[in-house]
Order: sequence, then structure tokens, then C-alpha cells
Amino acid sequence: MHDRRLAARAGELKPSAVRELLKHSKLPGVISLGGGIPAPELFDTEGLNLAVQQVMNGRFNDAFQYGLTEGYPPLRQAVSELCQARGVDCPASHVYITSGSQQSLDIVARTLLDPGDAIVVERPTYLAALQVFQLAQANILSVDTNDDGMLVEQLADLLETTRVKAVYLVPTFGNPGGKTLSEARRRRLVELAKKHDFVIIEDDPYGEISFTDEVRRPLYQHAVELGCVDQVVYTSTFSKILAPGMRIGWIVMPDWLAQQTVIVKQAADLHTNMLSQVITAEYLSMNRLEKQIALIREDYRKKCVALADALESQLGEHLEFSRPKGGMFLWARFRYPFDTMEWMKKTLENGVVYVPGEAFYNDNPDTRTLRLSYSTVSADGLMTAVERLAKSL
Amino acid sequence: MHDRRLAARAGELKPSAVRELLKHSKLPGVISLGGGIPAPELFDTEGLNLAVQQVMNGRFNDAFQYGLTEGYPPLRQAVSELCQARGVDCPASHVYITSGSQQSLDIVARTLLDPGDAIVVERPTYLAALQVFQLAQANILSVDTNDDGMLVEQLADLLETTRVKAVYLVPTFGNPGGKTLSEARRRRLVELAKKHDFVIIEDDPYGEISFTDEVRRPLYQHAVELGCVDQVVYTSTFSKILAPGMRIGWIVMPDWLAQQTVIVKQAADLHTNMLSQVITAEYLSMNRLEKQIALIREDYRKKCVALADALESQLGEHLEFSRPKGGMFLWARFRYPFDTMEWMKKTLENGVVYVPGEAFYNDNPDTRTLRLSYSTVSADGLMTAVERLAKSL
Repeated sequence: MHDRRLAARAGELKPSAVRELLKHSKLPGVISLGGGIPAPELFDTEGLNLAVQQVMNGRFNDAFQYGLTEGYPPLRQAVSELCQARGVDCPASHVYITSGSQQSLDIVARTLLDPGDAIVVERPTYLAALQVFQLAQANILSVDTNDDGMLVEQLADLLETTRVKAVYLVPTFGNPGGKTLSEARRRRLVELAKKHDFVIIEDDPYGEISFTDEVRRPLYQHAVELGCVDQVVYTSTFSKILAPGMRIGWIVMPDWLAQQTVIVKQAADLHTNMLSQVITAEYLSMNRLEKQIALIREDYRKKCVALADALESQLGEHLEFSRPKGGMFLWARFRYPFDTMEWMKKTLENGVVYVPGEAFYNDNPDTRTLRLSYSTVSADGLMTAVERLAKSL
Repeated sequence: MHDRRLAARAGELKPSAVRELLKHSKLPGVISLGGGIPAPELFDTEGLNLAVQQVMNGRFNDAFQYGLTEGYPPLRQAVSELCQARGVDCPASHVYITSGSQQSLDIVARTLLDPGDAIVVERPTYLAALQVFQLAQANILSVDTNDDGMLVEQLADLLETTRVKAVYLVPTFGNPGGKTLSEARRRRLVELAKKHDFVIIEDDPYGEISFTDEVRRPLYQHAVELGCVDQVVYTSTFSKILAPGMRIGWIVMPDWLAQQTVIVKQAADLHTNMLSQVITAEYLSMNRLEKQIALIREDYRKKCVALADALESQLGEHLEFSRPKGGMFLWARFRYPFDTMEWMKKTLENGVVYVPGEAFYNDNPDTRTLRLSYSTVSADGLMTAVERLAKSL
């Protein structure tokens, strides 16, 4: 009889029911509003081909040999410049390259969180972040959100009674809610961090995908102004603006945290894939990214409008939602008691899937909610998808 | 005043003193016998270029889009065939692609080990495995080794009094010792696993780099014969036989462990770099790997002989060692009390570095020992290196 006892932290993780359901999304004829994946026709094929060619001709050994745990130095430099353009004014020495945002969260959580440490997330929040914090055996607490993002005053109340180690949020065009934290709340959140001595994990995968010219200032920048930037961990990724298959993300973090996080990263995978790092550095040197992001913005904006218009005209009596100002997701909620998990069995029969909102809650799931992703479906496809949703009611 | 308390598991990890010392190994004129890195002139530049070209022309979207956590299906298939040729007769469904061997160990440790669980390693053992088990807060126990690898009877004694969750070893051309576990001990180890109900983690990065035609049967194969293959986790990598910069390794593991390990992998980095996976699958389909491995074997064999000959003739009175039959490392020991960590300051002045053996011990370090890597230095360079070592005495 073999010892099949798994570690408690791993044993607690459940294979997601959503994941099982979404497996059907690849059936022929099914339109998927489920995945959070970028539109492949917006990959810069020409630019990536050029970058790969340059690397194979001129940087072969850098790309195929072992590298440094902290990341490929020219990429760290290029990322720090990209960050500065976003208002995250950090030196290259504070930039650490990771195998994507998911790994950024995991290695920071492993470095920062002991079992039982309290971490606050948004309600709803990014599904895979919940997995990371569960794996760290943290005490996960949720704070509600509205159209202006996290209800920071609710957090303030919580802080009066509870010692919080860190707050995790996607402040701009959040996943799944599509919400953006207002400037006033950003300021207040950073003030609370300073007062109550917790770390802010600012996850920013979608910030560049804005449908307007409105400028949102990163929490990092507020923290610089308030003199507490060493309490902010800023993470971002090339997955949504360049290509997710290369798995390149990064962390901007202060020295006190970085030193041990780098050791954890070394234990986790020695270092991030060099081939992808060198290609990304080469690509960034070509100054094509900005133009590419403009194309992505415009494409997703049009799709988002198409989806929102169709929902409003065909399902407006049933669903309420705010129009996203950026990102990849529209978050909707039934106007009456409803179970979107159960409903998906029916919509799947009619050829359309989404993600039931309850997947994004740590506790008290709102079963009326659902996340609709518009990034990979054409405007016509989105209209058909909404017709199919309507037919399923 | 900010909360700079790190998680206990991360706080326990020390930046390696060796790593600090080895930073000097890149000084001009210094010959490094320190790194465990493959010779870049043995990368199959032509084959990798062809594979990359094929991928960019025919598999672009596979390479740049998100992928499955378990790995790219054609690569899982190709790896299972490669495994079968090694005597690891596994279906593709038991092969899981990782971001290198280091990640294989990390995600298996996170899934399998609770804090305090006993894991047995060889004395000396692979440095970065120690880091992984420390991060899992396991109770690490060491069993001695000799020329035939781990002293399995010492393990048997230990098992009489101690509940052991897993045994980790590099049975073929080990790192750092360069030792290979004898067939009799392999059998006995698997029998013990069956009797005492522990998991064997068989780490095999170097098995293909044999200097002779002698065949060593994997522990996995013994376990198949003894009917306990679901107690063996087999890990390997393309880092030493193709290119480490792509960070592609794999795990062969039974379903009872795989299910949760895949969830941990998903939380750790969603999935392994697709670009590298697709390139590796394409490369394997070209049937060039076997020829490439033959070149690596012959090159490393010659270098190993050059190093061993030089050591014998110039330092034979001072050092004892066994000639490796494969792999990348020669493990030597002073014949009298000696501190190789201290000595390195002197050898560095004379322009040569190695890794002091004490880095590879979990406890009771033998300060007389040192690891010499011959993979990246020419035969002439190795002779010069040994002259410099001799001069440093």
C-alpha cells in the first residue's frame, strides 16, 4: 500500500470546475467568451520574425545558454524604460524578469507569506491569484468592489481589527470585473499601506489596453510621492501586449524583498527562458511595441462596443453591466436571482460559453455574475454569441 | 516602519557563498572549472536554426499563444519515445513538461512534502535540490555515497527507525560526485521503496552523457519489474543535451501525484514556455539529437581524460579521485585535512576556480572536497588550470 498522502497545501487545491466546463469551448461551432487570451491575429508576426532572425544570427549563445536568475540585463534595462513611460519610475536594478505574471505572484507570495498571514484581495478577483495564495496557505480576505474598484473604506475598517500582510489587486481594467480604481482611492489605499504597514501587490497586465486617453497613475507612483515605495510590488507582463507563449513577465520590487525572492526564483526554475528574453529584448529595441499596442486597443475597443451593444439590446432586461474602459473583460450580473454555473450547460448546448462569476470569489460567490471576454471573437461572432445567450434564457 | 518580515521558508534560504565567489570566475584570464554548464560550441546551431525556421513558418500560433499546463502534446509524445529508448517505458500521458529540471523538483516537492516530512538525499548531493527541499521545509537527511553511489544499506538502517517520505538521487553520473549507482543497489533501493512505502525521485540529467557503452537501467525500470512504478518520479531535461537557455525539462509521474502537481504547476507559471516547447518538438522530429549526443559524449570524454591525467600527474600526491564514466563533473578530495573554500581565494589569484565541495552537503560537510567541471574548457585549458591549482598549494 503506497503512501499517497500529498502535502496539505497541494491537497487543498481543487481542479477548477470551470476549467472542466471550458474544455468544451473548443468544440466546433462553439463561440468562447471564456478564455482570457489575446487575439492571435494581433500578434506582430513580422516584428517577431525579425526579432527571432536577429537573435539567431547575432545572439545565439545568449539565447541558448544558461542565464542570470534576475533576468537578461538588456531586457531588465528595456523594461525599466517601458515602466518609466507608465509612471513606474524604477531603475533597471529593481526589475526582475519572471516566467510570466503568474510566476511573479507565486514567488512573491512564497517569499512574503507564512501560513495564516492575512492577504486582502478584491471581491471578485483574479482566479489564479487565489490559487497562489491558497498554495501559500494564506488567510485570504476579500473586500468588495464597485465601478470605482476596491471599496478602500471597507479595507480601512478591516485594518482596524486585522493585521494585514499584503493587499493584492488589479487596479486598472481588472480581471474579472473590468473595473478601474479611482485616483482618490489609489491615494487612500497607499496612505493606508503606509499607516498600517502592509505591502501592496499591484498587478498590471492590462493597463496599456485603454480605450480612452484617460491617464491612470500607478499605485507605485503614489507611493513614491508618499515616501513608501518600498511597500509596493508592481508586476506586469508581455502576455497581453506581445505574446503569451513566450512567458515573459516582470516584477518591480524593493531590495528588502528582492534579495530573498531571487533565491526563491532560483529554487523555482533557476532563471526565465533565455530564448524568449533575448527575443523580447530584441523586439523592444525595434520600437514597434507602441504601434502594436495601438492596434490592440482599437481592435478590443471595437469588439467591446459590439458586445456591450448586443447585450444591451438583447439582454438589457436581464443583465446589468458597466461598459469597460479598457482590458479584455466585460463583467455582467443578472438583475434577479440566477445561477450562471448551471446556465452554462444550456448555453453550451446552444454553442456559447463564458466563465461563471463564482470562480472569481474567495468566499460568498455571487452566482448571478459572469465574465465575458471579447478579445478573440469578431464583432459578428460576438453578436451571434449574444443571440445564443438570449436563446438560452 | 515597514513590515519586512519574510516568510519563514524564504527567510531560511541563504545566498550561497559559493555563488559570490564564482562571480569572479568571469574575470578575464580566469579558467572556470566551477559552472555546470554545457559547452556552447556543442549546441547544434544548424539544427536549432532549422527548427526555429520551421516553427516560425508553420507553427507560429502554437509557439506564441497560451498552451496547456501539462505541456505541448507533440512534445509529450516525442519525450515519451525518448524515454522509452532509455528504458523508461511510459505513455505520453505520464509525461509532463516543465520549465527545466529545477522546476520539476520544485513542483514535485511542493506537492509531496509537508513541513517536517523526511526526505533522504545523497551526501554530497545536488546543491539546488537542497534549496528546493529547504524551501519545502522538509526534514532533509543524508546517506553517504561511495564509488557505487548511495550506500543503500545505510538507508535501510535509517528506514528501520525513521519514516521517510521520499528519496532523492541522481543515480547516473551524479552531480557533484560523478558517481553511478550499481545495478545491485538500484534493485535494492527499489525493493526498499516498495517495502517502506516511500517515493523515489530519480533525477537523470546526465544519463545520456556516457563515456562507455555500459548500459545502466533506470530505477523506473526496476520499479516496473517489481510492480511499484507508481512510487517512482523520473525527471530529466534537455539542458545538457540540447540547450539550457530554452528551459525545457520533464517529469514522468503516476496519476495519483500528477493530478495535484499539475495544479501546482498551473499556480506556479500556468504552463511552460510554448516557443521553446514547439522548437524542441520540431527539433526532435528531425532525428538529429542522437548524433548530437554522440558528439557531446566524445568531447566531454576527451576533456575528462585530459583533466584526470593532469590531476594524476601533477596533484596525485595531494588529491584522490575516481575517473568519471560520464557526465560533466570530477569530484576530488585532498588526502589530508584541507579547506577547499579557503583555498579558492588563492587559486582565484592564480586564475582558476572550482566549486568547494562543502556547498553540496546538507550536513557534516567534507571540507577536503572539490568539484571540477570539464565541460566548457579545452584540453589545453584544463592542463593550464591544473598547473595553476598545483601552483596554489
